[in-house]
Amino acid sequence: MQQIKTRTLTPQLLSKIDAYWRAANYLSVGQIYLFDNPLLKRPLTLADIKPMLLGHWGTTPGQNFIYVHLNRAIKKYDLDMIYVSGPGHGGPAVVANTYLEGTYSEIYPNISQDADGLQKLFLQFSFPGGIPSHASPECPGSIHEGGELGYSLSHAFGAVFDNPNLVVACVVGDGEAETGPLATAWHSNKFLNPATDGAVLPILHLNGYKIANPTILARIEPEELDQLLRGNGWIPYYVEGHEAELMHEAMATTLDQAIADIKQIQHEARDNGNTKRPRWPMIVLRSPKGWTGPKWVDGVQIEDTFRSHQVPLSDPRSHPEHLKLLEDWLRSYRPEELFDESGRLKLELAELAPEGDRRMGANPQANGGMLLRDLIVPDFRDYAVNVPAPGSVQAADAHELGVFLRDVTKLNQEQRNFRIFGPDETLSNRLNAVFEVTDRQWDAETQANDEFLAADGRVMEMLSEHQCEGWLEGYLLTGRHGLFNCYEAFIHIIDSMFNQHAKWLKVTAELPWRRPIASLNYLLASHVWQQMHNGFTHQDPGFIDHVVNKKASVVRVYLPPDANCLLSVWDHCLRSRHYVNVVIAGKYQAPQWLTMEQAVKHCTAGIGIWDWASTDGEPDVVMACCGDVPTLETLAAVSILREHLPDLKIRVVNVVDLMRLQPEREHPHGLSDEDFDALFTQDKPVIFAFHAYPWLIHRLTYRRTNHGNIHVRGYKEEGTITTPFDMTVLNDLDRFHLVMDVIDRLPQLAFKGAELKQMMEAKLIHHRQYINQNGQDLPEIRNWKWSPDSTLPAKPLRGKMPVLT
Amino acid sequence: MQQIKTRTLTPQLLSKIDAYWRAANYLSVGQIYLFDNPLLKRPLTLADIKPMLLGHWGTTPGQNFIYVHLNRAIKKYDLDMIYVSGPGHGGPAVVANTYLEGTYSEIYPNISQDADGLQKLFLQFSFPGGIPSHASPECPGSIHEGGELGYSLSHAFGAVFDNPNLVVACVVGDGEAETGPLATAWHSNKFLNPATDGAVLPILHLNGYKIANPTILARIEPEELDQLLRGNGWIPYYVEGHEAELMHEAMATTLDQAIADIKQIQHEARDNGNTKRPRWPMIVLRSPKGWTGPKWVDGVQIEDTFRSHQVPLSDPRSHPEHLKLLEDWLRSYRPEELFDESGRLKLELAELAPEGDRRMGANPQANGGMLLRDLIVPDFRDYAVNVPAPGSVQAADAHELGVFLRDVTKLNQEQRNFRIFGPDETLSNRLNAVFEVTDRQWDAETQANDEFLAADGRVMEMLSEHQCEGWLEGYLLTGRHGLFNCYEAFIHIIDSMFNQHAKWLKVTAELPWRRPIASLNYLLASHVWQQMHNGFTHQDPGFIDHVVNKKASVVRVYLPPDANCLLSVWDHCLRSRHYVNVVIAGKYQAPQWLTMEQAVKHCTAGIGIWDWASTDGEPDVVMACCGDVPTLETLAAVSILREHLPDLKIRVVNVVDLMRLQPEREHPHGLSDEDFDALFTQDKPVIFAFHAYPWLIHRLTYRRTNHGNIHVRGYKEEGTITTPFDMTVLNDLDRFHLVMDVIDRLPQLAFKGAELKQMMEAKLIHHRQYINQNGQDLPEIRNWKWSPDSTLPAKPLRGKMPVLT
Repeated sequence: MQQIKTRTLTPQLLSKIDAYWRAANYLSVGQIYLFDNPLLKRPLTLADIKPMLLGHWGTTPGQNFIYVHLNRAIKKYDLDMIYVSGPGHGGPAVVANTYLEGTYSEIYPNISQDADGLQKLFLQFSFPGGIPSHASPECPGSIHEGGELGYSLSHAFGAVFDNPNLVVACVVGDGEAETGPLATAWHSNKFLNPATDGAVLPILHLNGYKIANPTILARIEPEELDQLLRGNGWIPYYVEGHEAELMHEAMATTLDQAIADIKQIQHEARDNGNTKRPRWPMIVLRSPKGWTGPKWVDGVQIEDTFRSHQVPLSDPRSHPEHLKLLEDWLRSYRPEELFDESGRLKLELAELAPEGDRRMGANPQANGGMLLRDLIVPDFRDYAVNVPAPGSVQAADAHELGVFLRDVTKLNQEQRNFRIFGPDETLSNRLNAVFEVTDRQWDAETQANDEFLAADGRVMEMLSEHQCEGWLEGYLLTGRHGLFNCYEAFIHIIDSMFNQHAKWLKVTAELPWRRPIASLNYLLASHVWQQMHNGFTHQDPGFIDHVVNKKASVVRVYLPPDANCLLSVWDHCLRSRHYVNVVIAGKYQAPQWLTMEQAVKHCTAGIGIWDWASTDGEPDVVMACCGDVPTLETLAAVSILREHLPDLKIRVVNVVDLMRLQPEREHPHGLSDEDFDALFTQDKPVIFAFHAYPWLIHRLTYRRTNHGNIHVRGYKEEGTITTPFDMTVLNDLDRFHLVMDVIDRLPQLAFKGAELKQMMEAKLIHHRQYINQNGQDLPEIRNWKWSPDSTLPAKPLRGKMPVLT
Repeated sequence: MQQIKTRTLTPQLLSKIDAYWRAANYLSVGQIYLFDNPLLKRPLTLADIKPMLLGHWGTTPGQNFIYVHLNRAIKKYDLDMIYVSGPGHGGPAVVANTYLEGTYSEIYPNISQDADGLQKLFLQFSFPGGIPSHASPECPGSIHEGGELGYSLSHAFGAVFDNPNLVVACVVGDGEAETGPLATAWHSNKFLNPATDGAVLPILHLNGYKIANPTILARIEPEELDQLLRGNGWIPYYVEGHEAELMHEAMATTLDQAIADIKQIQHEARDNGNTKRPRWPMIVLRSPKGWTGPKWVDGVQIEDTFRSHQVPLSDPRSHPEHLKLLEDWLRSYRPEELFDESGRLKLELAELAPEGDRRMGANPQANGGMLLRDLIVPDFRDYAVNVPAPGSVQAADAHELGVFLRDVTKLNQEQRNFRIFGPDETLSNRLNAVFEVTDRQWDAETQANDEFLAADGRVMEMLSEHQCEGWLEGYLLTGRHGLFNCYEAFIHIIDSMFNQHAKWLKVTAELPWRRPIASLNYLLASHVWQQMHNGFTHQDPGFIDHVVNKKASVVRVYLPPDANCLLSVWDHCLRSRHYVNVVIAGKYQAPQWLTMEQAVKHCTAGIGIWDWASTDGEPDVVMACCGDVPTLETLAAVSILREHLPDLKIRVVNVVDLMRLQPEREHPHGLSDEDFDALFTQDKPVIFAFHAYPWLIHRLTYRRTNHGNIHVRGYKEEGTITTPFDMTVLNDLDRFHLVMDVIDRLPQLAFKGAELKQMMEAKLIHHRQYINQNGQDLPEIRNWKWSPDSTLPAKPLRGKMPVLT
């Protein structure tokens, strides 16, 4: 292990740094405790204390220590740096520091830099209606709230991709370090290009305790920890202790060393062209939990134990001696030396902070919308699949999208603000074409047989959905664009990360100083119905159920039925802002339905009657479909019905934009009841073939006039490794079941329908026998085609249909 | 790095082991390709090939290699060992090996040990309606399907807790190793007690590639990998190469060494009482991906590249020369030396496999229901909170449950088959009492200030929801009992793991030879309404939306309104089998409603009218509630309504068992329409205060007669760090909003109600002002009590109410 001995700080500077740290600590304790008397100008009384003491002290002094030292390094090296606070509940630290550097008051003038502002700063913290105890969106300089632990390093790496001058100082909590996502995020260094990306400086804050437990990394041998970090590809430097002076000197020296290492690596790569994977520096800060707080209370040790996690002196009201201890604690920071008469940080200390945008709270990278440049998007119409008549040609939807994404990639190579993320599934999801113009970025060893690996590439693949999501979020939050392509079932792995990002979007949309960022776009291919290679474990279309629980202002869900619709939807997604867009698409050859012109109209409306597949006039039955495979089965069922029951009037409604189904008061895309009724009728049976779990359709439509007549087929947890058609059979969503559903719901078909039903049942038996014998679908299924002579030109949708955003 | 030089295998044994390996490889290739001609008794023709070639070769030969060597070790040391197949798509290997050892044919007599059985074995694999390409539940010896990657090590550790004689050989894929859950699972060794738990022998299978990419661990420096594994607390032994003879010798020697290490560690702990954390051995097997398969095809290297991941010779139909290559490949294993005339493995090879239950496919540990012993559960009625009248006393529900769980823990100390898992939240969720009788199991360093840490303990806490879930699953799958206690919002972290476990339960329930296991029980405390310490990031009650998408036969959801109901529900959960039970409970002091006798009746019914809070006879309005906080607000609203509108007839319905709301044809707990109507009326307004997202209630009740009148209040993504009452206000679920909801839905209240509505609005304004000023709720909220003189004795529920399972 390295030992730091050089003399880096002058006594004057050391003393000032220490004073600045004390100021931040003072403000942190103030936030947790003080209702009034913010500068302790009079003895502390119970009336000065908040009625309920909430908040978290444990991680705070360590983070304050780090922050002031980063400030020194920023000034010394003119660094473009932002701060990621990984440990939970570090809110007091980032709020205190952004307040001290002035950014807080610039954004919230009400929280002014004087005694009055201080009092408000203190009051709002962990207070009903105030600010949370995390590095929340309300806090300037934050791109990472850290309410849920584990994603700090992923966010930090996402932020520095294509940001060659940026350094993200990423504080990793030793509790957080036990999470899976954080444990594998250390490997992000194998995906960083030292020439064209920036640097992440991890600072593992080893303060020893979680809520009520020691942490693993603090309780293994120091040699073991060193091996672990080196094994993850880092060079760790250690700053360990608790005596302020020694620690300041050690931290300053170590930070200088780490910055020098980063500069050297970047120099090697950028000036000497050496992009061989470097060993990046990191810092391990081993300091007491609750450092500088009460050491012992009521005979029990507090500092340097788990007991300092929240509020060390929890009840001054019932323990008058605690009030005294609290006052002693606050006064130990000597506020009178730190703040002037008005309550403003003294000038000689304020000067320690960087200026302008170099302040970590003011760096525009942490308000990425300020830096966002539009993506250059080619005209998606140029990528149209030629569809002379509905169903007349086949294409693999995701593959066609890949060609479009290839050119998006190419057109934005220069401005370097677009990346594709996915867990080793870019090829599996058939986006092959992108590799015509780019590679996977990879900075570990390569071998002769490798394909599409390079130090610089637009595709990021690591077998960790957590990393893909975290990197992409960090990339978006710093003002760039991208998408996550994933197997549909396994996107649930990041359910909770999606939650946090959606919450971040909701809160930041309400903060006028936060600028909108590019949308988080999901492409879910390899979906539930396409299971020839996988099976039951790979079948879960429920991510969209999860997504629609979040704020309607933030979430959008699209299920394009064919390639031209998929292209149209993606053009929209890539241009949109501050949403989460979920797009589900097939990857196998499948019939194509709409010309590009029709597709644009259809996707702009989001839902519509397919006139070419429908009978004119008022229908006897509505056959609705949403998703590529359900659309195919619906049209096949319509063919059968037309052939055998030519008098039956059928209307086909296709849904691209799922949120169209919700009432307009529930979602901005929701149809009015009038428009909904115009599509689905007020009283006719609706057979709805749906891509996902059937209940979602009911959830979205339960207030509609005709809801009682809507009968939904979807995935109901039946499946195995089999063909897409057989998957629909196992879940009663196939053409034969749909035909039977229609018959069952139309009493007028009682006689004629009975015969057809028998035929459908025979078909199902025949199918089962054939596939069990041959391992593939009946030729009549494989070769089925929509009969072209029954098609009619598309007509515009009835009713008011605003262009969607 | 260790170098292996000793001579372990005799030439005869080596030759036999190699032959056995060839047999397994032959069967694996056969499964992927052969439709007929299973023993190659005639030249291979296209008719012998499956019509669609699906399956995965890449990982298979390496796993076959490992399996035969484990067989040797089991016999040599009489090991009690099971096999966990971590890499994706290792199905061909485990199927081949359990077939060779005889277990497959014992379970599936149709797949006999002869040519006929072989043909069926081959045909079913990756074939529609057949078996998946993973180590699926259908495969004997499997407790880990591995369709979704990342949980092998967690499952393995879960299996060995309290299983001192068991060794789990856990093959970890190098792709899988990139996932977060796997990356942190290496740390499980800090939680293993060498005296009372068994051992996990990880075998990191470094075959270099994922689907289309190299793996990280194969492309870092060997020294780096060694540091990483040692840093995670392991002693790695390396077996590297591709020449069969050298590899057999190296693997045998290394396995002997690893077993010796394990025995030495266990001896130290068990006989010498030394439970200081040992460094457990592990094996790194670096072998080519697709080992022994085609080396080059059409001028492109296949073996030892990502191209061998799936089907190396993918299209013999259109490439006749591939048919020849396939035949050469199959014949390279010399099947005529391996199988006798009838197609049965030759006796001298069959003897290599262990016998009886020592065969890994037959070990009862992998069919845990066979070993399951009932938990000793004390009479939960003894833990009753004394409730003289509804609302007359307060208690913290989770705390009361903790006392019960303490005694469950104590009573089962001896049979060692109950554990509590959670991410550092046992105390935070108020289960303090369990620490009166046990500790957290922890085998890393301890310090003077630690609390409740010991080498042997029933509580497992690591700050990783993935580990908690994976450990618990492994513990349950091997026939034990337990629960996972977690913050409600963060249980979404394991959404996808829950999916896989629920799917496992569904499939195993359909396999008669698989015995039911104990249910997976979740306790979600620190729920969405209790956010005084956390805030918006910690608010997501949507796990139950996710859960109810899975098979109704498997999932159960409970929201007990008070401590006595919580106790009754947990008694049921701990006795139940083969379910996932989700229980949501409060952790703060809250009013108690039911005596234990009432609670038992209420929970047995799962739903019921609270007569003591209702007016007799046909109501004007039904006020339904589900969840502790919504129940409180509902009763408070009822109080207000009674006081101000004494003529209004109100019925209070409380829901404990959420699935009661579904139609009986949808869920075994579903109420008949008749019973539902008896509770909710056919035509009266229903104001439903719900714990979670409001749409879930609509999803469950949309087919009910009175659904159009059900108005649901729930969480709608509004919240911050605040009091539980203020959380309800932010989401319109508070008593004042509920009163207004009633008035809005009853035209007869137009006049009298208007006044009350005004009063409610004034209350809300007053509340907002007060809490902004004081940081706590109005005294009238804090001190509110259900008026005891309005209570009536409980009456039994009307309608048919079966006892629930």
